[in-house]
Amino acid sequence: MNLLEMCDTEAAVVRVETTAEQAIRTMLDRHVGAVAVLDEEQRVAGIFTERDVLRRLSLSQRDPGNTPVREVMTTPVEMATRATTPSEAVATMLERHYRHLPIVDDDGRLLGMLSIRNVLEARIGTLTRQLDEVRSLPR
Amino acid sequence: MNLLEMCDTEAAVVRVETTAEQAIRTMLDRHVGAVAVLDEEQRVAGIFTERDVLRRLSLSQRDPGNTPVREVMTTPVEMATRATTPSEAVATMLERHYRHLPIVDDDGRLLGMLSIRNVLEARIGTLTRQLDEVRSLPR
Repeated sequence: MNLLEMCDTEAAVVRVETTAEQAIRTMLDRHVGAVAVLDEEQRVAGIFTERDVLRRLSLSQRDPGNTPVREVMTTPVEMATRATTPSEAVATMLERHYRHLPIVDDDGRLLGMLSIRNVLEARIGTLTRQLDEVRSLPR
Repeated sequence: MNLLEMCDTEAAVVRVETTAEQAIRTMLDRHVGAVAVLDEEQRVAGIFTERDVLRRLSLSQRDPGNTPVREVMTTPVEMATRATTPSEAVATMLERHYRHLPIVDDDGRLLGMLSIRNVLEARIGTLTRQLDEVRSLPR
């Protein structure tokens, strides 16, 4: 299973010039914990996560309605490509305590958003299939 | 494996009279997405999560430093007990889109906090052990 099969290819996105308020509304509407932030050329400029809301907005006096998301997003952000293996992606996420990893093409354009939950669920799927296979072998 | 073995028994907690600001600082310091909110008798009165920050604080004009956490926490909150099986807990979490489930004793006092990630990781552990066992059987 490759990363693109594991991730959410209909990832939630906002533009860099969007307000933090709109980005938060997108997260709430889409029931996700992170949105990818895209620049004018549709490349991933950063990600904006629930954690960013806690760290950079909720304890500040900033008004999310007047704060561009580019000022409170996480950037630069670690990204995966088609060439990244699932184990490399997991290692990065665990090491750096990331819950989300955007997957991009060679031009930095978004292919999907991988969450740690996607990774764990894929691992359960793989192990379950392996167990079924081993158990169905003739003895 | 029972729920108490899967969960975080050193769960992050705050008091109902704490401010939302302090509860957010606790989440950030402890690197967790939810804190249990305890009443005067140490019983779980609710939980306060990253999602609550997004939904109830970040888009409001409320000052977290002057907002008691009891006013923005999730309550009543679904809870598990020692008698709850892992599959019952998972079913509740998936059905209701909860990422956290407090585990309480008969008096409603906190025993630990179960996260969906704990559940997925425990499942991976179980499947890996089963696979190792099946593979080590003589053929």
